[in-house]
Amino acid sequence: MNAVGVIGLGLIGGSMAKAVKSNTDCIIYGMDADENVLAAAVSEGVITAGLEEHFDEIDMLLVALYPTDVVDIILGIAPRLKKGCIVIDCTGVKKIICTGLSEQLADMGLFFIGGHPMAGKEVSGYTNADADLYRGASMILCTDEHTDEQALKLADDFFKKLGFGRVVHTTYEEHDSVIAYTSQLAHIVSSSYIKSPTLEKRYGFSAGSFKDMTRVAKLNENMWADLFLANEDAIVSEIDSLINHLMEYENAIEGHNREKLVALLRDGRIRKEEDEEKEAGMGGQK
Amino acid sequence: MNAVGVIGLGLIGGSMAKAVKSNTDCIIYGMDADENVLAAAVSEGVITAGLEEHFDEIDMLLVALYPTDVVDIILGIAPRLKKGCIVIDCTGVKKIICTGLSEQLADMGLFFIGGHPMAGKEVSGYTNADADLYRGASMILCTDEHTDEQALKLADDFFKKLGFGRVVHTTYEEHDSVIAYTSQLAHIVSSSYIKSPTLEKRYGFSAGSFKDMTRVAKLNENMWADLFLANEDAIVSEIDSLINHLMEYENAIEGHNREKLVALLRDGRIRKEEDEEKEAGMGGQK
Repeated sequence: MNAVGVIGLGLIGGSMAKAVKSNTDCIIYGMDADENVLAAAVSEGVITAGLEEHFDEIDMLLVALYPTDVVDIILGIAPRLKKGCIVIDCTGVKKIICTGLSEQLADMGLFFIGGHPMAGKEVSGYTNADADLYRGASMILCTDEHTDEQALKLADDFFKKLGFGRVVHTTYEEHDSVIAYTSQLAHIVSSSYIKSPTLEKRYGFSAGSFKDMTRVAKLNENMWADLFLANEDAIVSEIDSLINHLMEYENAIEGHNREKLVALLRDGRIRKEEDEEKEAGMGGQK
Repeated sequence: MNAVGVIGLGLIGGSMAKAVKSNTDCIIYGMDADENVLAAAVSEGVITAGLEEHFDEIDMLLVALYPTDVVDIILGIAPRLKKGCIVIDCTGVKKIICTGLSEQLADMGLFFIGGHPMAGKEVSGYTNADADLYRGASMILCTDEHTDEQALKLADDFFKKLGFGRVVHTTYEEHDSVIAYTSQLAHIVSSSYIKSPTLEKRYGFSAGSFKDMTRVAKLNENMWADLFLANEDAIVSEIDSLINHLMEYENAIEGHNREKLVALLRDGRIRKEEDEEKEAGMGGQK
């Protein structure tokens, strides 16, 4: 890997560029809709220059754009990339991306892999980008029958070098189904939780659990709306599952059924403890 | 304040005893159903001796027991306390405690105040007790027409000395209503969240938001069941509110109503940002 391009220098792409800069000797070319961001990245030495004049030089292209922009922008650029360039996006849903790019780029002699770095912050933009954002995190790579095995191996090594704790290979179906639970549902719950009318009385009455529950309510609503809409079946299924479980607790409380309530809470505790044990046994896989 | 008694040396009471030891010159007498815990607290110098022989010497009694035990145990001990002793419990619901003790202890010449230290851990017991558990946290004190103003002032100063960030005065009605949202609902959500069938596939697919959502699923089910049952109306109302909000997001997703979905998410983000600004403006009141 000699030269890497990064399109979209916000929190995710900017952190990628900074991680590449910190952990490799690659030349980095960048592109961003905001000229000031691009200028800042150049002046800080995070990137060498703008990508516009260098599409045919890069060995890998990382794309961190809004979900609805990714496919069109990559298809527009693809003819200018050199054969064998590895193209990896960073979008939080993968079906719409992989079905729009995998076969298409393979036909053009490019190696596409659907990517999703499992890290983020409640703040966005280049100014919050951080070379260590991905340290220890999981990098998900979605493969299919068009995936080039050698490109995948290069990608694995590359992301480990950037500081990711592990690289996971999966399909876009599996990715979208699991991510609906581990990430998307958390954002819906957090955004719902903050809406109780009791919120305004909470000062002096809250501690860690309230803070944890509401942390990710601070989100980018346009991006998340598109992520949810692109994963409708899975997220709706997870919301339904959560509501059904909440109603079990509610019914036990309303029915003054202490035995049932204790059993529900005990089951939750045991699941959490087993989950933590399993994570620890897998070397701390998040 | 010369001598303090602590009944129940688990996570909450043990941390109180350690905080008193670290931050004051008070003599501390302790009591616990587990003789080994009592012996450990004595041998570590956290308490001077068992409370049994010293009820008539203490100026303040802190009680950290299971919700359903608090009233009976305090009423049983009360005749042995000296007049003017300040009695403060640490229970997470306050109506059942304050209505069972406030007038009753006042009639005996004792000064009762309902207390709730806003801190905790996902682990319990004396071995996890920590002198710094309460550092910066809020201590809630519930007052009513039987509250002695001088005792309340002494309690305020005492808890600030222990490291609490602030002491909040409220009524048991207000306490139970707000705590249902800030703490109880978080525990119900966390315990529900961990129950999705997708849990077993999550390894390699999760990050901070999943961890935050499920952290407090690791709870003491017997204690929490009693806390929920003692606050039925408020917690049921909060669960209903959350379910209704979750369904708004679900309906917007199922109806492919992007505009509505963005509006719901934006409203959540703004509420969270305003909440953080308000907290910061109030000197970081949690």
